[in-house]
Amino acid sequence: MNRDHSLDDTLITAEERNAVYKTIYGRRDIRSLFKSDLIPQEVLARILQAAHHAGSVGYMQPWNFILVDDPEIKQRTKEAFLKERGEAALLFEGERQEKYLSYKLEGILESPVNLLITSDPTRFGPQVIGRHSMPETHLYSTCCAIQNLWLAARAENIGVGWVSIFKREDLYEIFNIPRKIAIVAYLCLGYVTHFPDKPDLERAGWGKRLPLKELVYFNQWGGAPSENWQGFHLLLREPSEP
Amino acid sequence: MNRDHSLDDTLITAEERNAVYKTIYGRRDIRSLFKSDLIPQEVLARILQAAHHAGSVGYMQPWNFILVDDPEIKQRTKEAFLKERGEAALLFEGERQEKYLSYKLEGILESPVNLLITSDPTRFGPQVIGRHSMPETHLYSTCCAIQNLWLAARAENIGVGWVSIFKREDLYEIFNIPRKIAIVAYLCLGYVTHFPDKPDLERAGWGKRLPLKELVYFNQWGGAPSENWQGFHLLLREPSEP
Repeated sequence: MNRDHSLDDTLITAEERNAVYKTIYGRRDIRSLFKSDLIPQEVLARILQAAHHAGSVGYMQPWNFILVDDPEIKQRTKEAFLKERGEAALLFEGERQEKYLSYKLEGILESPVNLLITSDPTRFGPQVIGRHSMPETHLYSTCCAIQNLWLAARAENIGVGWVSIFKREDLYEIFNIPRKIAIVAYLCLGYVTHFPDKPDLERAGWGKRLPLKELVYFNQWGGAPSENWQGFHLLLREPSEP
Repeated sequence: MNRDHSLDDTLITAEERNAVYKTIYGRRDIRSLFKSDLIPQEVLARILQAAHHAGSVGYMQPWNFILVDDPEIKQRTKEAFLKERGEAALLFEGERQEKYLSYKLEGILESPVNLLITSDPTRFGPQVIGRHSMPETHLYSTCCAIQNLWLAARAENIGVGWVSIFKREDLYEIFNIPRKIAIVAYLCLGYVTHFPDKPDLERAGWGKRLPLKELVYFNQWGGAPSENWQGFHLLLREPSEP
């Protein structure tokens, strides 16, 4: 009976559930809509705390957060981005290259705060529960923390943009990060003029969201639904589809 | 003016924000509290759709979801876990080993549905925006999708447990997964008797949550707060701390 009582205490209501879905569907990768307004420190603290409350393999909490607001450091980071973007552009050809170079892919200088997020594979020593067979799981935990942060920020009406167009080497140097530490993400955070209703790369015609039903298999790779799951594919349509 | 109007449309209210935090703080890694009740298919579809709406590097959406409910496949997976747990136990000594073996670390058979989640590094070909410099970012995107899924499940009052005590080799074989595909996570999903207020490994005395203030640096690795951020560490206390 106690147990049922406990469940009642922690039950998420239908209204609360809808708020979570609204936040998940309203989250965007923001690059070009940042406003310069400062983020209040208590809001930033809430967002970081939400990240810190992600689960982690063997409870190792491998993450660190480097808050970046020094204009000189941001400038060096921006230059590292520009250099790398130039190199990456060479991989695309013709119209695709022109498009690539026309996209705004970061908001390093415009956003008031950047966050570099790392993962320490050595935290709590070599014997961490669940990491023996899959040592890279510490990175996965850190990414779960990042998604918590992203959704908490969205719930605070703050935009987040993840910039991955860097040579890691440059980031190690700019931020004096020891080589044993993995650099996972470089994020730009700030209030925004608005949250677009679709991802930038979809609005720009670069890509489309894949139909979810093509990504779901049953009991093995490529496996078709068994009898029990015949109607399931119909339920996997986009929330906006009829 | 249009822009401000757009922001209003997508604004998350204080009430909705609290629901998001409640879900983030109430999320647990569930291993031992599963009930056998089936998850309605429309609920499972909502949870998968939430995962599919994570951001992804270059919009590549590298994930696939293998739904597992075949008792024979679950049994083989459970055996792969038991074999690997036995090996991993040898890494711990004395009391720590006893403790490790006493922990319930998965709910493969008890939970009605398992989910194996993979990431395809080749989706949309080699030229994906943002992956040139950090090719493993497709894995990070898939982990963001997993955290979306975890939180959506929590918002549906469904528990999720991530099992990482496997030899990947065994999972490739059991699920006939091509070698070019990365196996990221094996999850157990089901309704639960209740959601504990703290992580299992904390309640069991295995580990403690680290003080967040020790994990936050400023402008470089190990960097102390600048003048602007002097009071920030005080804001980084646990939500439950006074």
